Amino acid sequence: MAAWGERLAGVSGVLLDISGVLYDGGEGGGAAIAGSVEAVARLKRSRLKVRFCTNESQKSRADLVGLLRWLGFDVSEGEVTAPAPAACLILKQRGLRPHLLVHDGVRSEFDQIDTSNPNCVVIADAGEGFSYQNMNKAFQVLMELENPVLFSLGKGRYYKETSGLMLDVGPYMKALEYACGIEAEVVGKPSPEFFKSALQEMGVEAHEAIMIGDDIVGDVGGAQRYGMRALQVRTGKFRPSDEHHPEVKADGYVDNLAEAVDLLLQHADK
Amino acid sequence: MAAWGERLAGVSGVLLDISGVLYDGGEGGGAAIAGSVEAVARLKRSRLKVRFCTNESQKSRADLVGLLRWLGFDVSEGEVTAPAPAACLILKQRGLRPHLLVHDGVRSEFDQIDTSNPNCVVIADAGEGFSYQNMNKAFQVLMELENPVLFSLGKGRYYKETSGLMLDVGPYMKALEYACGIEAEVVGKPSPEFFKSALQEMGVEAHEAIMIGDDIVGDVGGAQRYGMRALQVRTGKFRPSDEHHPEVKADGYVDNLAEAVDLLLQHADK
Repeated sequence: MAAWGERLAGVSGVLLDISGVLYDGGEGGGAAIAGSVEAVARLKRSRLKVRFCTNESQKSRADLVGLLRWLGFDVSEGEVTAPAPAACLILKQRGLRPHLLVHDGVRSEFDQIDTSNPNCVVIADAGEGFSYQNMNKAFQVLMELENPVLFSLGKGRYYKETSGLMLDVGPYMKALEYACGIEAEVVGKPSPEFFKSALQEMGVEAHEAIMIGDDIVGDVGGAQRYGMRALQVRTGKFRPSDEHHPEVKADGYVDNLAEAVDLLLQHADK
Repeated sequence: MAAWGERLAGVSGVLLDISGVLYDGGEGGGAAIAGSVEAVARLKRSRLKVRFCTNESQKSRADLVGLLRWLGFDVSEGEVTAPAPAACLILKQRGLRPHLLVHDGVRSEFDQIDTSNPNCVVIADAGEGFSYQNMNKAFQVLMELENPVLFSLGKGRYYKETSGLMLDVGPYMKALEYACGIEAEVVGKPSPEFFKSALQEMGVEAHEAIMIGDDIVGDVGGAQRYGMRALQVRTGKFRPSDEHHPEVKADGYVDNLAEAVDLLLQHADK
């Protein structure tokens, strides 16, 4: 399926989503998706610039990179754009003190942030931490504020673990938005600011860059709205109906990252 | 504040919301709102017809009535319109087998319903039952269905317990709607079908009826859209900003049910 291969001409930088593209999370940390370890290695040996752009918000960047390296991927912390560090920057710039509804695994990212007497709420993919009690506490903090501010690290609907589909942070963001009558500020894909940071850190302009992800809305739609090209992989949370999405059409659909890299290495130089 | 009292002329039937109007739930069952026991008694001694119209979905109708009677209210099961029995009727009519995400207290209402091999999901105010695991299970059931059907018993944003504001079923309905890309069918206020049942059971036309509730959207807005008049009480989940709601304006605002009944008994006959 390289009829659309010519759309890859002139690509000089590649943003890779992580969960569902490199690996599927799950028991024991999860499993690399077949061919992905080698595909990343081939990309990094090519003349293309590569950066990882994730909405992962259950783990700190250090833990995520540790897991990926353990699975065999060649990746370092400095190559990863992730929402928790981006949120910390915004909190500091705006003098905000968050109430955190986040997974214990990512809490260390907020170590330098003042969380006393909170004047905003930050939610991330808290997994089991999305108990009624924790959601109600976040709701009550927001309702006590004169100007309630809610940050959501991503707004994904769900992701895929080895055991099946799992609710992501997006549904819980929607729940708090509705409960409080507010709109959340999204930190992470598909926010334009987030793609902007990732591209700046990679040193590539949007029109020269391509996003490869498993999320038709967050990865593909978000990147395209920011002027990038985007491929969807048929791994991770991909569902066949994504190829007929009413609003988003990827520049191409590939079976997995290995196929995407094959095509990129064939066509990107042209 | 009886300047708007004349709007009550010609009322012959009164629908009373329960939580936040008659009592506030909470530890030990909750507490009657001052003056409400006597106000209900006075209404029932008057020539006005009275019916209770609730979105309560944590308790069976029998348990709710038991609690109200224990708090001193003159009320019987036959006088209460509640969403769980309404949902059972719909499930039977449409041959649907629900996966239930509901509070244990209301499960008995579904005793006669086949829940094997589910082909829809019913959510209600599950309270602590809204764990990540239970939400994820409901999500997975919906995602497995070719035509996912979600019923929500009400869509309230929150309610008030003696200990503070608590998330209602609405935010969790929104979460599942977003996660699955679907729209729920609401059984309960503000659904027109629900007000229709309550009015039929009371034997009063919409233009002769008034709703008294603490929820500006679910009670007041819903009733008005169905052609009824509606008062908001400043008890329960009422917040001062409700009196300047961008979309809904009650026919009148009263401090509590006792004041509403005073005005009704003064003006309804005229």
